[in-house]
Amino acid sequence: MQFTAAQIAMLINGQVEGNASATVDSFGKIEEAKSNQLAFLANPKYEEYLYSTKAAVIIVNETQELKEPVSAALIRVPDAYSAFATLLHKYQEIMRQQLSGIQEPSFIHKTAVLGENVFVAAFSYIGEKVQVGNNVKIYPGVFLGDNVKIGENSILLPGVKIYHDCVIGKNVTIHAGTVIGGDGFGFAPQPDGSYKKVPQIGNVVVEDFVEIGSNSCIDRATIGSTIIRSGAKLDNLLQIAHNVEVGNNTVIAAQAGISGSTKVGNNVQIGGQAGIVGHIQIADGTRINAQSGVSKSIKTPNSAVTGSPAFEYTSALRSQAVSRNLPDLEKRVLELEKLVQQLMQERVII
Amino acid sequence: MQFTAAQIAMLINGQVEGNASATVDSFGKIEEAKSNQLAFLANPKYEEYLYSTKAAVIIVNETQELKEPVSAALIRVPDAYSAFATLLHKYQEIMRQQLSGIQEPSFIHKTAVLGENVFVAAFSYIGEKVQVGNNVKIYPGVFLGDNVKIGENSILLPGVKIYHDCVIGKNVTIHAGTVIGGDGFGFAPQPDGSYKKVPQIGNVVVEDFVEIGSNSCIDRATIGSTIIRSGAKLDNLLQIAHNVEVGNNTVIAAQAGISGSTKVGNNVQIGGQAGIVGHIQIADGTRINAQSGVSKSIKTPNSAVTGSPAFEYTSALRSQAVSRNLPDLEKRVLELEKLVQQLMQERVII
Amino acid sequence: MQFTAAQIAMLINGQVEGNASATVDSFGKIEEAKSNQLAFLANPKYEEYLYSTKAAVIIVNETQELKEPVSAALIRVPDAYSAFATLLHKYQEIMRQQLSGIQEPSFIHKTAVLGENVFVAAFSYIGEKVQVGNNVKIYPGVFLGDNVKIGENSILLPGVKIYHDCVIGKNVTIHAGTVIGGDGFGFAPQPDGSYKKVPQIGNVVVEDFVEIGSNSCIDRATIGSTIIRSGAKLDNLLQIAHNVEVGNNTVIAAQAGISGSTKVGNNVQIGGQAGIVGHIQIADGTRINAQSGVSKSIKTPNSAVTGSPAFEYTSALRSQAVSRNLPDLEKRVLELEKLVQQLMQERVII
Repeated sequence: MQFTAAQIAMLINGQVEGNASATVDSFGKIEEAKSNQLAFLANPKYEEYLYSTKAAVIIVNETQELKEPVSAALIRVPDAYSAFATLLHKYQEIMRQQLSGIQEPSFIHKTAVLGENVFVAAFSYIGEKVQVGNNVKIYPGVFLGDNVKIGENSILLPGVKIYHDCVIGKNVTIHAGTVIGGDGFGFAPQPDGSYKKVPQIGNVVVEDFVEIGSNSCIDRATIGSTIIRSGAKLDNLLQIAHNVEVGNNTVIAAQAGISGSTKVGNNVQIGGQAGIVGHIQIADGTRINAQSGVSKSIKTPNSAVTGSPAFEYTSALRSQAVSRNLPDLEKRVLELEKLVQQLMQERVII
Repeated sequence: MQFTAAQIAMLINGQVEGNASATVDSFGKIEEAKSNQLAFLANPKYEEYLYSTKAAVIIVNETQELKEPVSAALIRVPDAYSAFATLLHKYQEIMRQQLSGIQEPSFIHKTAVLGENVFVAAFSYIGEKVQVGNNVKIYPGVFLGDNVKIGENSILLPGVKIYHDCVIGKNVTIHAGTVIGGDGFGFAPQPDGSYKKVPQIGNVVVEDFVEIGSNSCIDRATIGSTIIRSGAKLDNLLQIAHNVEVGNNTVIAAQAGISGSTKVGNNVQIGGQAGIVGHIQIADGTRINAQSGVSKSIKTPNSAVTGSPAFEYTSALRSQAVSRNLPDLEKRVLELEKLVQQLMQERVII
Repeated sequence: MQFTAAQIAMLINGQVEGNASATVDSFGKIEEAKSNQLAFLANPKYEEYLYSTKAAVIIVNETQELKEPVSAALIRVPDAYSAFATLLHKYQEIMRQQLSGIQEPSFIHKTAVLGENVFVAAFSYIGEKVQVGNNVKIYPGVFLGDNVKIGENSILLPGVKIYHDCVIGKNVTIHAGTVIGGDGFGFAPQPDGSYKKVPQIGNVVVEDFVEIGSNSCIDRATIGSTIIRSGAKLDNLLQIAHNVEVGNNTVIAAQAGISGSTKVGNNVQIGGQAGIVGHIQIADGTRINAQSGVSKSIKTPNSAVTGSPAFEYTSALRSQAVSRNLPDLEKRVLELEKLVQQLMQERVII
């Protein structure tokens, strides 16, 4: 899609300076933008690029002074960075609204109910009694098992698989390849050393405004629900086991894993590749460092931990610092042993 | 599907007490069940919910005494928990038997051979000379490469991809998005710093009664087979590299990884996010703690290890305990140094 | 496909000894090959199998002496191992050339441009203005978003998803389930504790001769490009975050993760399950051990690190060695304290 400088200025309430009919069709960094792109200048550090950039349109702060002539059309706004962010949101909204209708071939069970302005791409599969809310966008190769519910404005990127009976809220985005509702990992050991499957008959509930990255796994509960609370943001390649609860506005970075039945509080931050054992509680506002291994409940809100096993952040860092110099510490102990032995031999017993 | 209390009692050899025609269509925990659900009471801790639950039907121990009137229909059995588990298995069996036939559009090569009562969902792809056993259930978007064999009663959930020549046993379940038979990671370094691919011409053999979670990867062997032995249970997001062997009834938790050519024995337990280097052996019955990094063979059966690099469990825990107090230990050494220095200066040489 | 010993000898410039019309249709290890297979003998350790193998054709060194009669047809070449590798490459080339044409049903937007001898399998989705180079092979269930470019000779295995605007070079192989161009994980914290999505409008550029394993994730840049440089080899289940750059001929083992905006140099080796924080630089030739956690830039080329947090390899190993004996070290300190206390009490003040 192409936009003129004048159209963009209207979207973000800015003033055009220069060629109002200059057109752009994509976005670029000011230092590497091409002649069909729009850029912005917010950080004075990059001002030199204002005079050399190939961008056709640039959003600048209204206070921006020009030391040289500028070939691009300028759009002046009170705050260039936030105007640019606003523009991106509006642009993505416009792009998404264009996705609509049912592409063929797709498989939509006759008992499924689809809302208004829904997009169902080719090769998507919508099972029995599925409910899809208004404005939901379903990309190619998505699988929705029987009885799944998808709330309005949600977006399912290519190849997302949602097993039967799971419930997805409104304004949720789930990226490509993520699996919601696979069986929890439950097997009962038998006397002969084999394992018997424990049926996993619960579901997964993902509340509103959640975003989940690519190729993540959120397993269904054994009974009841695995729950991702409203506003949580989950990255790629996550493992969320059965019956876990993730609190509101909690953020989990890529490749982290949470074992079964653990309850993670609100506004928690979990670093990449961190692991949390099962059946524990993580207090609100906890910060868990990348690669940590959390092996017991964290009860004090807003604490920070690191290491595997994980401990309180500051003291763990202190231990790590000593740990690095262990060979030196051992040498000091050896030296002491020699001196003390010498002293023991030389001592005068009174 | 709906069942009456009478029908359920018949399936699990129980006695109905109350309304034998009460109907349910799903399962719930006794403390949160809805009026269309069946629950069970096995743990006396939850007895209070027997009198307040909305569940329409409850399975209880035959010895269960009632302190108050119960509105739900009761089904009395010798052991409520195991009767409930049995019921779930039968229910899932019934549900699965209903899946049958070929949905369109699907792609089935004319040389492929399908057994009796097979289900092939829409958008599934079955390549040349593929053999699919009786009662196999293939969900949407599954890919079976040329010459793949799937044993009877196996279930391939949505988006499972099995590369050419791989062999899957009987009664195997593979969850959504898992990739079986991708190329092993083999590249020969060249004098100019680049890498030349080593062709990966082996396959993967998954034996009977194996279950594999979602979005896991099991790579094909360079030559020969990567093998998952009978009864092994593998969780989500696992990496099993080329030429690995995983023994009978071995259990591997999510996000663990096993490097090339390593042989893991029988009845081994591997915790989440653990890693095992290549070309080593892990003895039968070994227990590897979550996040461990196993860097050499474990030869003693039934041993337990933890840490990265991993060591014997008890002594590793002891080291970790001291490690936590390292700053304190360093302080003690510093104190000793001062005292010894003082003693050295004060000593009386005889 | 079947080949005779004579045909194979011609492909690798060898001399047939025995039945030149013996046929094979696959490859096996000499110790376990079947009667329809070709094997090779390069390592003298395996010579005994030359006389007992069931393989119909065996590639051997031209200097190989026979101590017993051999039933298989032999093909003599100067170097059996490299002739075998050459044969595999030619075989895979032949197999791949056979893949051609458009299978139905597939979805190819009318504005997409496909080169010569392209294969598009059933259930693949090719969006608006996509450009697909000559000889590209697209397996079932692949998704190519709008404006994606795929360079010639590249191979996209089943279920690969490439989001809009991403660019894939020539001779690239991407294995099943991998997601290229999912949104970077960028969310701005709001005063009320919630997060606001930062639009991710960049793309991913994968240069020539790159191979990427199964179920990996490479996120698109916030602005600009996430870049995988020519010749890099990436394993399964990797996380490559937004705006990361991976250098030429860099090798990354399974389950490793690289956080946002980090620049990894050329010829770097990253072990399995290693993690690298965001916004740092890794010098050319760095070797990062498996499970390491790299928390700051590595500026010296060709250095090696291990541990979490990661340090210089040799000194980290030394610290780990002492760490293992910490309980012993603590005991020695305790013993010293007792002796020093005794000495302090017994000392003679002059």
